[in-house]
Amino acid sequence: MSQEFFSEIPKPKEFEVLTKRIQQFCEKHADTPRIVLVTSGGTTVPLEKNTVRFIDNFSIGTRGSSSCEYFLSQPCTAVVFLHRVNSLRPFTRHFTNTNFFELLVPGDDGQIMVSQEHFPKVKKNLERWSLCQKDGSLLEVPFTSLSDYLWMLRVCCEAFKPLGSKVIIYLAAAVSDFYIPNYEMAEHKLQSSEGAPDIQLKMVPKMLKPLVRDWVPDAFVASFKLETDDEILIKKAKKALEIYHHELVIANLLQTRKERVVFVSNDAEEIIQVSQEEREAGTEIEAKIVDRLIALHQSFVEK
Amino acid sequence: MSQEFFSEIPKPKEFEVLTKRIQQFCEKHADTPRIVLVTSGGTTVPLEKNTVRFIDNFSIGTRGSSSCEYFLSQPCTAVVFLHRVNSLRPFTRHFTNTNFFELLVPGDDGQIMVSQEHFPKVKKNLERWSLCQKDGSLLEVPFTSLSDYLWMLRVCCEAFKPLGSKVIIYLAAAVSDFYIPNYEMAEHKLQSSEGAPDIQLKMVPKMLKPLVRDWVPDAFVASFKLETDDEILIKKAKKALEIYHHELVIANLLQTRKERVVFVSNDAEEIIQVSQEEREAGTEIEAKIVDRLIALHQSFVEK
Repeated sequence: MSQEFFSEIPKPKEFEVLTKRIQQFCEKHADTPRIVLVTSGGTTVPLEKNTVRFIDNFSIGTRGSSSCEYFLSQPCTAVVFLHRVNSLRPFTRHFTNTNFFELLVPGDDGQIMVSQEHFPKVKKNLERWSLCQKDGSLLEVPFTSLSDYLWMLRVCCEAFKPLGSKVIIYLAAAVSDFYIPNYEMAEHKLQSSEGAPDIQLKMVPKMLKPLVRDWVPDAFVASFKLETDDEILIKKAKKALEIYHHELVIANLLQTRKERVVFVSNDAEEIIQVSQEEREAGTEIEAKIVDRLIALHQSFVEK
Repeated sequence: MSQEFFSEIPKPKEFEVLTKRIQQFCEKHADTPRIVLVTSGGTTVPLEKNTVRFIDNFSIGTRGSSSCEYFLSQPCTAVVFLHRVNSLRPFTRHFTNTNFFELLVPGDDGQIMVSQEHFPKVKKNLERWSLCQKDGSLLEVPFTSLSDYLWMLRVCCEAFKPLGSKVIIYLAAAVSDFYIPNYEMAEHKLQSSEGAPDIQLKMVPKMLKPLVRDWVPDAFVASFKLETDDEILIKKAKKALEIYHHELVIANLLQTRKERVVFVSNDAEEIIQVSQEEREAGTEIEAKIVDRLIALHQSFVEK
């Protein structure tokens, strides 16, 4: 079923280049003790072939980009960051609401430099970013549409498969459940003169099934479940575990996602949260999520 | 009709603060010879009240942000830049594909500075940006959803109305023609277990009508018409002029929008284009669009 679906959706433009890069990254990290795929940001679903309009998911990649940073601060860990173009990225995310010209001032010697005010924060993040560039522990792979995402997810998993249980798949991207098949898509921009269109969506096959069963059968797979309705959240998380047989569902509500998540596994429901005081002191919930997840992965590897 | 529509759509969160800012800007520029409203970027249409999914338009704000720069480089001109959050902005847009850490290097004295390689481009744009901050010729007003955009568009026009014919309204934003009325919107995230949804959209009333007739009756109004089908482009541009009675429709095709536009007015069709050589030498079509538009506005004022 997934094989058939892939034959119907277009490959990303830079498919060959990106695939090569991912394969080389995995070869390089064949002996690295832990390798993580973090997916981040939302996917678009085009409504027309010459895409003017599309359906998008609300996600700027906060969860994925911050988790990526915390994975990178673990020892002996390499990360592939599969992210939506223009969504948040590790280290630069701390400056996202800042016009970067605001960080700069003219120096005495005609140079342009980072202002005293912003210096500590820029220095800290620039150093961490530079280190990742130097030691090659981070590979950033971009996507925009749902089909780009699914293709690159599969390529990453296939490259990770030989690495066995040291692989963590951390599915934080907000992926559309729906799409419009190519053959039903309008060639040109929908004309407003023809009245408001009625958009008929189709379900995307659940990729978690082939991912867990075939693509990376030995990996530690964590998926996210985001809802707005508290009453169905845990039930839906448990159901996902039953269907896909992976290790962990991280359940969260849109309204409280920065304060509280629930780790739902086969034998436990564990609440992870940050208090108001912790948040004010700068603790992000992703720091705790990643710490706990690394411990669970450790037990998983030892089993 | 538009009045009724406004009563049905929510106001932006920061409505009062933004309105105040726009009014103060107009008071300050009461004697500035030319005042321009540039709209830029796409609008979102939420599919749910607790917004997880939305329909978006393909637009990163290239046209609007670059035009804004060229308006600002005209003498005696003030600009309100009504733009989609996270879309391109004047001056910083030149660094949009650059991770800003790539621009920085450690200096000898422990400072962090802009690298030699990027220095000329950063210096030029930083200086122009700083000048606009200092002389107050630019006001940036953000929006995200269709309803945010429409509310702020109306507020800007109302503040501009007393300024008469020295006002240019330059509507480069890619605004959705469709929306989902509040009363038809789902409270919670659409559930994939209930199958693929069928999304029924409604037409947004054409705001260009009240804008030209009531909101800014003395202003020079230029709208854009973007299509993917060459055969209907000019016909649709002319039809817009007939219906709304404004000064100018700038018609363009998605495929060639960076090379060629057609100025469609009541008495002429004028092609504005940049050659391959000009583009390679760094000339943007918006430079020519703005130059020509300023000339047309000049004649308009003199009449």
